[in-house]
Amino acid sequence: MTTWLVNGQRDGRLSPTDRGLAYGDGLFETIALRTGRLRFLDYHFERLVFGCERLGIPVPDTDQLTQELETAREDCTDGTAKIIITRGVGPRGYRPPPAALPTRVVGVTATDASVKSVWREGIRVRLCDTRLSENETFGGMKTLNRLEQVMARNEWRTPDIAEGLMMTDSGHVICGTASNLFLVRDDTLLTPSLERCGVRGVMRRVILEEAERLGIVVQRPVVTRAMLAAAEEVFVSNSLQGIGPVTAWNDERYGVGELTRALMAGLAERGVQECTAG
Amino acid sequence: MTTWLVNGQRDGRLSPTDRGLAYGDGLFETIALRTGRLRFLDYHFERLVFGCERLGIPVPDTDQLTQELETAREDCTDGTAKIIITRGVGPRGYRPPPAALPTRVVGVTATDASVKSVWREGIRVRLCDTRLSENETFGGMKTLNRLEQVMARNEWRTPDIAEGLMMTDSGHVICGTASNLFLVRDDTLLTPSLERCGVRGVMRRVILEEAERLGIVVQRPVVTRAMLAAAEEVFVSNSLQGIGPVTAWNDERYGVGELTRALMAGLAERGVQECTAG
Repeated sequence: MTTWLVNGQRDGRLSPTDRGLAYGDGLFETIALRTGRLRFLDYHFERLVFGCERLGIPVPDTDQLTQELETAREDCTDGTAKIIITRGVGPRGYRPPPAALPTRVVGVTATDASVKSVWREGIRVRLCDTRLSENETFGGMKTLNRLEQVMARNEWRTPDIAEGLMMTDSGHVICGTASNLFLVRDDTLLTPSLERCGVRGVMRRVILEEAERLGIVVQRPVVTRAMLAAAEEVFVSNSLQGIGPVTAWNDERYGVGELTRALMAGLAERGVQECTAG
Repeated sequence: MTTWLVNGQRDGRLSPTDRGLAYGDGLFETIALRTGRLRFLDYHFERLVFGCERLGIPVPDTDQLTQELETAREDCTDGTAKIIITRGVGPRGYRPPPAALPTRVVGVTATDASVKSVWREGIRVRLCDTRLSENETFGGMKTLNRLEQVMARNEWRTPDIAEGLMMTDSGHVICGTASNLFLVRDDTLLTPSLERCGVRGVMRRVILEEAERLGIVVQRPVVTRAMLAAAEEVFVSNSLQGIGPVTAWNDERYGVGELTRALMAGLAERGVQECTAG
């Protein structure tokens, strides 16, 4: 069950001339609602504001968004919140209207608490055929242009595979369909550079902060399939599930290693209860 | 003034959970309505059906779409019709629902007849900084993921520039923000290959048919900036305006050459009145 507000209006709907629909001209955020708290909401807002500035969409009032998120969640304490900001309705044609009036969508979906920690014990991943295209204009942003992820996620339906890893158009391993990717090799944490591709995840940011706090060396290289196969530890991350240690990919098997565990413990301390041991 | 039908309902609106909004998970067509006729409607339908099949979206009933277009246009004889097909509403997450119920949007915007033939006498173009990313999964399709075109079209506001040409991420000239590109060199018609990027335009298809009819040699090479600069004739095309001969790009000047004129005459005979001489 989802409760939505569109421009503050409960159960509001959108015009078919909204540029979010017409062109994917907008951005979104997916936020974990845990024990009544919108987790890392400030980080989500920071990314949203950064994206709006990059796209030239008037920056939304985050106080108003916070208030609307509170309204939408009602008495729901655990679920998934979503914010969509589009450039709003406009006349025909790609050209953005000079004075855009953004559309604001805020929604909360209650989730069954039992599905929360499915990632913790380790997950199996596949490598998707659908590639992620590269374009430095949009690197790191969470825009509404997500058809590549949709097609990648459509490649498998077997429930034993939790996530699909994706390669860039030029053949480098970059992220999961809905997650960021980390490898561990020689006590070093590696995560792909997102300058030209991929979403700069909020949980990725928290992990990088925890890595710094723990004194772990971090590198942001171009990641190849060979590096993935040779990694000592592999995990994916996202806002809703924290860290998912990858224990299987094709014939490769990985343990849930020390460094992954240390980061999970760090995340658990910061309220990512999905990473709590046991 | 635009009249819309959403799933057949006049002035219908869309759910914020529609995957067209959430992910750009859908396709669209923009069709010229001229003297009461939806021009090349069969070609638009062919591309739409092809796209739906590629994306795994249930193919819409084109008879129903035709009927709805007729309803939406009322007594309007000249304007722009648009069809949007999305994968419909769905639960959270990229994964397409196994039984998608597509959303069907049909709209007609009446246009001022006086702006119809702005391209005919020749246009000035620029080369955009925003690149088009490459991905063979979507090559040629007109999906709702169009943020690259939006950002490219946002690069200029001076009315003397009619269109912006775009380069692929790897630096080849590929198309305009809302048009396909053609060059003439040594009596040969060149148009960029669209295997990995760009939209296979309906007017482009008609032009290629006319070229064949006229016995013009056609090639689909990778097009470089140098080839653009050295071309004898350059033109862009789209469904709404037919052919726009490019007469200026930076310091380059091009004439409206013989081959371009022959193709414009061929188009005029097929109902593209925007290409009618004089």
